[in-house]
Amino acid sequence: MTDPDKSVKVALLGCGTVGTQVARLLREQADDLTARVGAPVELVGIAVRRPNKHPQVPAELLTTDSAALVAGAADVVVEVIGGIEPARTLLLAALRAGKSVVTANKALLAEHGAELFAAADASGADLYFEAAVAGAIPLLRPLRESLAGDRITRVTGIVNGTTNFILSAMDATGAGYGETLEEASRLGYAEADPTADVDGFDAASKAAILASLAFHTRVTASDVHREGIASVSAADIAAAKILGRTVKLLALCERVTEPDGAEWVTVRVHPAMIPRSHPLASVGGAFNAVFVEADAAGQLMFYGQGAGGAPTASAVLGDLVAVARNKIAGGRGPRESAYAALPIRPMGQTPTRYHISLDVADRAGVLAQVAAVFAEHDVSIAAVRQEGRSVDASLVIVTHAAADAALRSTVDKIAGLPVVREVVSVMRVEGEGP
Amino acid sequence: MTDPDKSVKVALLGCGTVGTQVARLLREQADDLTARVGAPVELVGIAVRRPNKHPQVPAELLTTDSAALVAGAADVVVEVIGGIEPARTLLLAALRAGKSVVTANKALLAEHGAELFAAADASGADLYFEAAVAGAIPLLRPLRESLAGDRITRVTGIVNGTTNFILSAMDATGAGYGETLEEASRLGYAEADPTADVDGFDAASKAAILASLAFHTRVTASDVHREGIASVSAADIAAAKILGRTVKLLALCERVTEPDGAEWVTVRVHPAMIPRSHPLASVGGAFNAVFVEADAAGQLMFYGQGAGGAPTASAVLGDLVAVARNKIAGGRGPRESAYAALPIRPMGQTPTRYHISLDVADRAGVLAQVAAVFAEHDVSIAAVRQEGRSVDASLVIVTHAAADAALRSTVDKIAGLPVVREVVSVMRVEGEGP
Repeated sequence: MTDPDKSVKVALLGCGTVGTQVARLLREQADDLTARVGAPVELVGIAVRRPNKHPQVPAELLTTDSAALVAGAADVVVEVIGGIEPARTLLLAALRAGKSVVTANKALLAEHGAELFAAADASGADLYFEAAVAGAIPLLRPLRESLAGDRITRVTGIVNGTTNFILSAMDATGAGYGETLEEASRLGYAEADPTADVDGFDAASKAAILASLAFHTRVTASDVHREGIASVSAADIAAAKILGRTVKLLALCERVTEPDGAEWVTVRVHPAMIPRSHPLASVGGAFNAVFVEADAAGQLMFYGQGAGGAPTASAVLGDLVAVARNKIAGGRGPRESAYAALPIRPMGQTPTRYHISLDVADRAGVLAQVAAVFAEHDVSIAAVRQEGRSVDASLVIVTHAAADAALRSTVDKIAGLPVVREVVSVMRVEGEGP
Repeated sequence: MTDPDKSVKVALLGCGTVGTQVARLLREQADDLTARVGAPVELVGIAVRRPNKHPQVPAELLTTDSAALVAGAADVVVEVIGGIEPARTLLLAALRAGKSVVTANKALLAEHGAELFAAADASGADLYFEAAVAGAIPLLRPLRESLAGDRITRVTGIVNGTTNFILSAMDATGAGYGETLEEASRLGYAEADPTADVDGFDAASKAAILASLAFHTRVTASDVHREGIASVSAADIAAAKILGRTVKLLALCERVTEPDGAEWVTVRVHPAMIPRSHPLASVGGAFNAVFVEADAAGQLMFYGQGAGGAPTASAVLGDLVAVARNKIAGGRGPRESAYAALPIRPMGQTPTRYHISLDVADRAGVLAQVAAVFAEHDVSIAAVRQEGRSVDASLVIVTHAAADAALRSTVDKIAGLPVVREVVSVMRVEGEGP
């Protein structure tokens, strides 16, 4: 079944942590890849900025002219540069020339996915991007293919390792955000500039990609409501513990069905308290996991390493084998599936639940005043816990689901009540229970 | 992109728990399926034994002549009958006629997979079987495709819901096997004849399929060492607890690399003690989960419902969409990948670790006698725990890895020592730690 004359020629764009591993695996697993594809997979060039910085790869493969590499003999272009440009221009050129693309570039897909898919469609090329979300975890292929006969209602993911490392550490030590971030940087779990991770940009790109696939609807990063973890305090973590919960930065993709049958989607990234018994609660450190709920399949979870050179390279190689097989054996991978085109609603309309911890004056009637504010905003309370101390008292409230805007207004109004001394913690809760 | 003239015609063989759900989903999700496939998916007939027993499906679709249904207008045959015959004959006829097949039949694949793949290959038809292992969990597609560029070293699965329900209940209540099986039957978690589940036949078929895909090697059910859970006692569960472990029925597929580089595989199903901190330990009740270790990807876990009509139907539908897409858009799914053809070695040569709990005479020198037997068999001890009581004493030993046959001989010899009053529990341990 193997045809040595019909090799699949691969151009690699970028040779950082992931690219180096891709080049290594292509070399070390050459025989296995040939057997799996049905033809040799040949690396014909690696585009880098500084050729003298890459002693691990054969010098004769290195070039600084990425455009020429893409325009050359390659059948498949693998992109692991990251960022929007020059990746976008290079991949559009590849796809327009009928070359299939394998990319790990979440930001590019989340912002310009439609343009890339259109170019792939016009020329009949493949566009694969398993490595763009949750690194090594085979997640996009199951969503795009395995669950293609089911109706996905919700995707809840821990898709950023840096923030999960920080929140896991805060939960374990009780330390604050600032010092834990410093510790994470020191250990190499956070970048020198951690903005993309801690402010939720990275997770938002991944959420957009997941929602697009899950709901057959185009979702871009700008459609995603985004809140990072910089405002998560030791008090929030402590409040979660009292409720039997832990704080995670979640990427939430949800299909909402109105009583009249109308459907819309909402996509958001924010910290939330989840029950310690939830399968996602035990996902610690830099691991990723994605929880999927579908009508027929029920609850599924996918767990594994979300980043790192070798794990991400594994996902890239899996895609490369698929694309190469398609080239040799005929056939094409799945195209963009955006037929459902569900409306995307903003965060304010999204049903959420809040936890609110208050320091209040210890006097009769405080709960009545606070409860009146909830009632006024049509927000129903699920559980209340009051604890008196000498002068102050604490009041912990968990709500039922209500529109996020109504909850936000309720909190603002409560914060202004004279009997409320301090709003100690406000955070959304996800999952069952109070 | 949708072509209403080019419908994909589906014949359904079997209409039990899974078949009924497949028929329902095909009807209820017809519009979505049309959009995803690019053409309508039309159910043209359902083969059943007793047509009057299926009021939930349209009577005009029912037939008792399954051979004629397969030979008829169908493009795709979906088989959810189970068992070897008539499923084997019907699917071979379908594949030989160039009709693609989607099946949930683990026993058939584990015994006659090579024959089915050969027939599919000869005619260019597709053979998909996601539902055959771990129900709704998208697992085979990740193994066959996502990890196609990686080297899988080990697959450890909880792939049988009935036995997992029983072992979880025994762990929670401390009750024995017999009464827990009765309870499981009463609650509908065990069949009237539970043999296929509790004796590990079901798990062994699944292990054979998983090993074939993971190691690119033909593995049949008869290659799988199989031990069920009937001999797991309350004492075993209690002994596991003392070690911070829990007992699970595991399907283990392993690639062993000798110091000289020679490789072989071993596939086995047996109860084992795993650490409570292992991701598989918290998989409770009738859920399934599969833990995959690969060179580049690292550790991955897939979790979800392993059985039930709707979850299994979700997996069948996912395959059906893939097969139908291939028919409409061109292309073919992955073929059998058996190029590695690694030798399969028997259980006796497989490296395992044992836990042994003994009731021994409380006198000096007992440990020395027992330890001598281990040394004699070249088995190294990892941890020992001795507890004296008035006349008796207990001795708990966990070994390092050794060939299973050597461990087995060691236990036999120890059981015959005059100082050993009773062998309380013997069980293999998997995962890190003593």
